[in-house]
Amino acid sequence: MNEPLDRFAGPAREALPRLTPDERAVVHRELRELENGDHGGGTLLDGLRKLAAQVPERLYTDSADVLLRMHEIAGSGNHQSNLSSLPLVRACFALGLVEDDGRGRPAELVVGRGHIAPAFYAEHYVRGTLPFTPLTTLHQGGLTGVVHRDLGFRNTMRYSLGVGVAQAVSLAWELTRRGEDRKVVCLAGDGELHEGVAFEALRFAHDMGLTNLVLVVDANAKGIEPLPKPVNTGYLAAYLGRLVEVDGRDEWAVEAALGALLAMPGPAVLVCRTRKGDHSFKPAGTPAATPARVSFASTAGRMLAAHRERTGRDMTVFTADMAARFGLRGHVPYTNTGLAETLTVGMTLSLPEDTLKVVATDAMYYMDSLSMLTEATTGVRNLLVLAGRSWGAWGGAHNATNLLGLLLHTRVYEPVTEAEFAACLDRLSRHPATTHVVSMVDAKFDPPAADCSADLDGGVWLTPPAGDAPDAAVVTFGYASVLVAEANRELGVPHLHCAALAPELDPAVLDVLSRCRRVLSVEYNGARGGFGERLRSEYLLPVEVHGVRRDIANLVHPRQLPLHGMSTAMLRERLSGLLESREAGRAPAHA
Amino acid sequence: MNEPLDRFAGPAREALPRLTPDERAVVHRELRELENGDHGGGTLLDGLRKLAAQVPERLYTDSADVLLRMHEIAGSGNHQSNLSSLPLVRACFALGLVEDDGRGRPAELVVGRGHIAPAFYAEHYVRGTLPFTPLTTLHQGGLTGVVHRDLGFRNTMRYSLGVGVAQAVSLAWELTRRGEDRKVVCLAGDGELHEGVAFEALRFAHDMGLTNLVLVVDANAKGIEPLPKPVNTGYLAAYLGRLVEVDGRDEWAVEAALGALLAMPGPAVLVCRTRKGDHSFKPAGTPAATPARVSFASTAGRMLAAHRERTGRDMTVFTADMAARFGLRGHVPYTNTGLAETLTVGMTLSLPEDTLKVVATDAMYYMDSLSMLTEATTGVRNLLVLAGRSWGAWGGAHNATNLLGLLLHTRVYEPVTEAEFAACLDRLSRHPATTHVVSMVDAKFDPPAADCSADLDGGVWLTPPAGDAPDAAVVTFGYASVLVAEANRELGVPHLHCAALAPELDPAVLDVLSRCRRVLSVEYNGARGGFGERLRSEYLLPVEVHGVRRDIANLVHPRQLPLHGMSTAMLRERLSGLLESREAGRAPAHA
Repeated sequence: MNEPLDRFAGPAREALPRLTPDERAVVHRELRELENGDHGGGTLLDGLRKLAAQVPERLYTDSADVLLRMHEIAGSGNHQSNLSSLPLVRACFALGLVEDDGRGRPAELVVGRGHIAPAFYAEHYVRGTLPFTPLTTLHQGGLTGVVHRDLGFRNTMRYSLGVGVAQAVSLAWELTRRGEDRKVVCLAGDGELHEGVAFEALRFAHDMGLTNLVLVVDANAKGIEPLPKPVNTGYLAAYLGRLVEVDGRDEWAVEAALGALLAMPGPAVLVCRTRKGDHSFKPAGTPAATPARVSFASTAGRMLAAHRERTGRDMTVFTADMAARFGLRGHVPYTNTGLAETLTVGMTLSLPEDTLKVVATDAMYYMDSLSMLTEATTGVRNLLVLAGRSWGAWGGAHNATNLLGLLLHTRVYEPVTEAEFAACLDRLSRHPATTHVVSMVDAKFDPPAADCSADLDGGVWLTPPAGDAPDAAVVTFGYASVLVAEANRELGVPHLHCAALAPELDPAVLDVLSRCRRVLSVEYNGARGGFGERLRSEYLLPVEVHGVRRDIANLVHPRQLPLHGMSTAMLRERLSGLLESREAGRAPAHA
Repeated sequence: MNEPLDRFAGPAREALPRLTPDERAVVHRELRELENGDHGGGTLLDGLRKLAAQVPERLYTDSADVLLRMHEIAGSGNHQSNLSSLPLVRACFALGLVEDDGRGRPAELVVGRGHIAPAFYAEHYVRGTLPFTPLTTLHQGGLTGVVHRDLGFRNTMRYSLGVGVAQAVSLAWELTRRGEDRKVVCLAGDGELHEGVAFEALRFAHDMGLTNLVLVVDANAKGIEPLPKPVNTGYLAAYLGRLVEVDGRDEWAVEAALGALLAMPGPAVLVCRTRKGDHSFKPAGTPAATPARVSFASTAGRMLAAHRERTGRDMTVFTADMAARFGLRGHVPYTNTGLAETLTVGMTLSLPEDTLKVVATDAMYYMDSLSMLTEATTGVRNLLVLAGRSWGAWGGAHNATNLLGLLLHTRVYEPVTEAEFAACLDRLSRHPATTHVVSMVDAKFDPPAADCSADLDGGVWLTPPAGDAPDAAVVTFGYASVLVAEANRELGVPHLHCAALAPELDPAVLDVLSRCRRVLSVEYNGARGGFGERLRSEYLLPVEVHGVRRDIANLVHPRQLPLHGMSTAMLRERLSGLLESREAGRAPAHA
């Protein structure tokens, strides 16, 4: 076992062409050391520390430069968010909160601003406790952009925004229960504090009389978009008592203030006024003349505008800070509710019946709002729920779409063409009491040759069967149809595409499928309780279900595909297997 | 259509034996009027108003007396909660917020304290705008204990605690958007303000500069249990600006203060200091000598204590104000997190691996915490999730258990014996990385003759098949097994009981089932994506699925049973049909 080698060598080698000659030379040296030496045994971080000691030369001495290079190499990420927190991160290092210097850490550090892990890596690098190689692998299967225990953090974040404050309060409570008087420092963002659970945690800490919580707020006044108002210090002081404000761009001021607060008894909050540029990293020098392909999700704003134009209908759009992701700006008016997904849904509850109500956030974020959403699906008419699907660097529960599909009075669709999206809206107009959940794919792709716009609840053959009794067939849902169509290009397996998570297949189609020796279903979605299992359950078709079975990881989309058996090559192999195999009979769901 | 008659006559007649002679006489007169007259046409409330005018005599002139009688007749409810808000409700009537007196209401009223609907009914009654008959039908299919648009409220509440504040902010935003300067009064409880979404809504209203929200807080310092600290006025003032405190037991003081706040420009909060007795109504004069049967859920505390005794294991228990429901007090130490379900789950995130972490709330309330729960099911070991199942007066999403079953690293069980509950805990000890969700039934019942404690993931025959190829069989999940066993007593249909939502049936059992001409599955749970559909999907068994298909209503348990085809008589008929019917073949899932 050589965990550092296993984890970083592959993606680092792939990154080589994007490195400077000096960087490349260091990576080569580090990889040689990794191949020759023993860096396993301890934790992943121990192995990396050992490697850093073996190749001590530093290419950069300022962690801000390192951060920029990491994002340039990765080509994506939250560079500005990391920059805004960098002085806070440096202060945490300076106070001994990050690394045990042998005297024991003066306090526990919980990083609630989950996606500033790169700022820690960068600072580790310039301090000589991390080699260069991992830095070249951000979002590419090596380093994750969000904090993880494996990489030296006290906490791991996966799903829930605002989870960090809860983790900090959980820890503060536990230390209190054990009679330890150590403090817990929670590094949070001002946007993240909009999450209801952050309030629940602070209120609880106050009401339980916890005295060991120190909240450090990176107050850059910006989520993805600017916050409408600065962080409310009156609120924070009401729950945490002592409140100190500093210039968060001055790492010495942060260090001094935080050090003082740690030395004083009782809870406290340190508000660090910082500044932040654009949320998402955009590589410099992208030629403006090249018309970039855009993700399907980011065309939502334009498609909504077209619908409004067509119908003349009153429309309200609420988004949990994701206007850019859905391409709303310049197309439809919208209200940014900030990082407050439950309220985003709740905002639809008292609007006029005929108004089209659109809510837009990541599919995963609705999972902390399913009661509120049920309140809306049972009581609100003309409700359109846009559920972003990224399988992206921030993660995303693979079963979110299936969970949404189980709500009362709800139908789920995953359109892959503009016409299918329009059909979803038209169907909602005809069935206003049914909430239409529309899964919006972040990927960039060409539309398939045919679509379900004429029969949104049915299926359409992308590759029709030659006769009426083909040997095998594949049935796919939404974006998986695009992936399978590509893999099937030269194979010609009869291929049925569905836009509905729970399709209503017509007798002729069912007849074809039931005569197939083998039927495969493919969904880029949780297999459990999803599209394929519904086909089995609804029609008792012996469908072999191909879907996501493991957790979505913190990786960019192209790296997620092979993780879940969704790359073109893997799908092609699966389809070929269908044709070759001669065993017949009732296949198990989980072949 | 005579909606008042259809809705109230049945339950009112059933209530007659519990009424005083005077009450009975009035109900008889009102029912006669209803039968003879036309009370349909307008809204339900219009019909009731008409009836109240036709039988104008009042049995009571003090709404507190009416409230007491309503709860005595119902035998359950939140009498003290209603009493604590009664002066606030009277002030709302006095200010014209409840009934349009022809001059238009001075402001919109959203009742966030959802279960104080009875206080409004009581006040309506003494004011002559509601007849007596409906009051005798609370929780019994007539009046609902929570606010509903059908009964004259501006908002309806079903699922989500804290939804009222979101509804109020949604309305305040909409009025602002339309350029109307009317205010929105939101009547909330101090416990309810612990919900994260209430914060999300207040923060948003503040940051968006909404000037038309007036929050009225019934600050009785009690949820179901006493709050650890009084409502935080600093917090409320930080978001709403003007804050006034009054003695909430003095209706004149409330009226004066609220009237003044409505007349002033800008948002405001009125904190009404009130007092509240026991949360749940207990009928007076229940003989103490009678040992009452208790619900299965309320034995959780005793069973957890037994486990702790047996294993000597460190255990933490967090409950969202439901210690009484799970019978925790006196058996295991617990921490009441208040009405903050997401935090309740979050509190498990930073505890030691080996500690047994128990979280306990209603199954429905986890639905606003499924991302946080996924965070826990993927990162926390030894996690036991107790999910209360009431099908009760407050409602409850019928699909909650199925949703929980789709989370990563999760197994769901619904034990119906003490031994099955212990088996769940033992299984968790053996599989600490799998979160065990244990559905805890509120009903009182005798344990079945056999259980799955020896093989928790399998099935056990409660009525074994006579030969190895029976004509029909029934397979049931959890509490449904108890109901079906009762219905099957004289029928003798082979009956397999499962404690696991996703059982792993052994080949012998599968062989028997696959040879049956018909197999019925029964679950007191959402049919969609539930137990029976999993049997179909997993084993391709042509199971006919009998489960809950419509929304859970605000009714007491005995009235829920026939609503969902779960009464003994209805189940007996379903089982008899299995035996009689001669049609064979693949039955549809939704027969």
